[in-house]
Amino acid sequence: MEAGEILNRMREKNPLIHNITNVVVTNFTANGLLAIGASPVMAYAKEEVADMAVASDALVLNIGTLTKENVESMIIAGKAANKGNTPVVLDPVGAGATAYRTESVQKILNEVKISLMRGNAAEVAAVSGMQAEIKGVDAVGLTEDVVAIAKAASKKIQAPVVITGKKDVVANGDIVYLIANGHPLLTKVTGAGCLLSSVLAAFIAVEKDVVKACAAGLAAYGVAAEMAAEQGGKEGPGSFQIQLLNKLAQVNKEDILKMARIEKEGEFAI
Amino acid sequence: MEAGEILNRMREKNPLIHNITNVVVTNFTANGLLAIGASPVMAYAKEEVADMAVASDALVLNIGTLTKENVESMIIAGKAANKGNTPVVLDPVGAGATAYRTESVQKILNEVKISLMRGNAAEVAAVSGMQAEIKGVDAVGLTEDVVAIAKAASKKIQAPVVITGKKDVVANGDIVYLIANGHPLLTKVTGAGCLLSSVLAAFIAVEKDVVKACAAGLAAYGVAAEMAAEQGGKEGPGSFQIQLLNKLAQVNKEDILKMARIEKEGEFAI
Amino acid sequence: MEAGEILNRMREKNPLIHNITNVVVTNFTANGLLAIGASPVMAYAKEEVADMAVASDALVLNIGTLTKENVESMIIAGKAANKGNTPVVLDPVGAGATAYRTESVQKILNEVKISLMRGNAAEVAAVSGMQAEIKGVDAVGLTEDVVAIAKAASKKIQAPVVITGKKDVVANGDIVYLIANGHPLLTKVTGAGCLLSSVLAAFIAVEKDVVKACAAGLAAYGVAAEMAAEQGGKEGPGSFQIQLLNKLAQVNKEDILKMARIEKEGEFAI
Repeated sequence: MEAGEILNRMREKNPLIHNITNVVVTNFTANGLLAIGASPVMAYAKEEVADMAVASDALVLNIGTLTKENVESMIIAGKAANKGNTPVVLDPVGAGATAYRTESVQKILNEVKISLMRGNAAEVAAVSGMQAEIKGVDAVGLTEDVVAIAKAASKKIQAPVVITGKKDVVANGDIVYLIANGHPLLTKVTGAGCLLSSVLAAFIAVEKDVVKACAAGLAAYGVAAEMAAEQGGKEGPGSFQIQLLNKLAQVNKEDILKMARIEKEGEFAI
Repeated sequence: MEAGEILNRMREKNPLIHNITNVVVTNFTANGLLAIGASPVMAYAKEEVADMAVASDALVLNIGTLTKENVESMIIAGKAANKGNTPVVLDPVGAGATAYRTESVQKILNEVKISLMRGNAAEVAAVSGMQAEIKGVDAVGLTEDVVAIAKAASKKIQAPVVITGKKDVVANGDIVYLIANGHPLLTKVTGAGCLLSSVLAAFIAVEKDVVKACAAGLAAYGVAAEMAAEQGGKEGPGSFQIQLLNKLAQVNKEDILKMARIEKEGEFAI
Repeated sequence: MEAGEILNRMREKNPLIHNITNVVVTNFTANGLLAIGASPVMAYAKEEVADMAVASDALVLNIGTLTKENVESMIIAGKAANKGNTPVVLDPVGAGATAYRTESVQKILNEVKISLMRGNAAEVAAVSGMQAEIKGVDAVGLTEDVVAIAKAASKKIQAPVVITGKKDVVANGDIVYLIANGHPLLTKVTGAGCLLSSVLAAFIAVEKDVVKACAAGLAAYGVAAEMAAEQGGKEGPGSFQIQLLNKLAQVNKEDILKMARIEKEGEFAI
């Protein structure tokens, strides 16, 4: 896996990532994208989202603080992106938590062809209608269950799926990668998952093989998190958050070669 | 006062706090709640706020950047919370600054039964119609004046009231606690008060005696601020803000036992 | 140039700055204003923006994440500010990137008399209709080109204009100042330009000579950035962002006397 090379290519291209995202994470997402070497833009008005999506190298739709207006804008932007061949990443934040969220995700999926969906196991399960069976997040602690959810979801939405957790899973149909980087402190920083979705969009913008792009992006992000935890982790979640931005800017090909733990269907494949 | 025990109980339960809050403080509020050991969720759409409020352990309504849509959502969420016995905390940010804010707070209070209102002296005075008499914030520098405002407001809205300032006051009718923790640098971090309202919601979620819950929450928050000032205060408000997140994660029962300054009607009652 | 004295006067007055700004930068703008010694307020509802604008010492209109509702609020607030003699700063974020942004800026300029417009070269060129000629940002790397754009824009909108870049340019018709402070890391912090617009509003609130106020504000901000880069720059953009807040609080008259590089039409004029 040439994860480090994809990172370098992304930094050279400095792709413009159009985010229609939630109000909690906008600042952190923008700073994280700048740190790792992409360019963020946020634009929400239905009058301009189509123009912005087409002018961008990838589009991220994040439903964390949905409104009726935002869903409309997401669909307009998504359709324009589809026409203009701009890849679209969907982050179904909180799907399953309320009926409105689950329905809104379905609405978006019905109208927009996405290149990737990224969420936690419960969110992805909710989108693929498996929620009833898994009864919450605790039931899916085992990696094999998560892989099964990711595969099923990928088949259902006919696009690659990333589920993040203890181990991150990338699935495209039956093709599966496992990435074992990252750090528990990521769960103490709000928007760490949302930022990751936008980072994956930046990788997809420069690598057409979405599964490879995701494996590279997950490894780069996870290695940066491990470096951040080493430097700021003992002080607490505030310092970790700042160090994560620092390390997203610093992480390089050598760090990834040394620290990435990417596995493909049972064999190590860094 | 078993402030430290209430903190421990809160961390064990990890209550889900549904925030309908202003656009300035969403990220800081979410990170602060995560740091101290609660779980934040932000949801604003009227289509889903009732579901989210009922699924949560407490609801926070913060009017810092009001819109007509948000007031509507707050009332829908508040009524659902009332039905489902989810406690509701109201933060009347900027009440008195414009007629629209003062009226919106009244509208919310008319429709939603709240468990706690937290603001500064001027905001609380405005809500209880005392603003004309106090003529701005400077007139209420004395602790006895603040206690009088808190008592009057609590009687008027028939709920406990917290006024934060040099000393923090908790009043439920004529029952009053004074908490003398905290640090002036808190006034240099935007949303320090808003985050505190959400933290108090987390304490109320695990302790039915609201006055006790607030005294414990104010002490924990104030002690964390003092620890943060010691570590990052000299560098400036940026470092203090990050250290506050660190210390909200670290502050424990022993710190509170040693440092809390909680007074009840003249007698020390830590 | 009495830049340091204007800074001191601003801190003494602690002006209230009403921001109608984008969702990415609200928190950073509020913390930055607090750090340097001003008071931020954010208020967006059309029901209250007129009241808030009149009660404030300056109004900032920032179109970074425009919506139809926000444009309406901006115009209501701007007109009220004009009537009440509250200075108005316009930040045309992303003008030229979509037709909607360019049109919205024109709409605001048609209805509101502004005291200052601040943007980068491409944005300012777009507002003054020069975009077609300059074909993107890369074409305007030379300081003489930027000065020409600033002069032309200032004449067109009949108000002072600040263009930030390698060197910052303040132009009021043919009067031009160049400020050579700042640091490249500012481009790695989202909202560094937006915060600067709000900081300039705080300086304008205490100094009627807008060009002088801007030169002083740009110098103070740029010197703080240089101090921040020295302390946190090597660690990365996360640490730099925090140090910028620290240094905005610390930068003083002596730092400015020593470090400011303000030039007026060819002669140094600190």
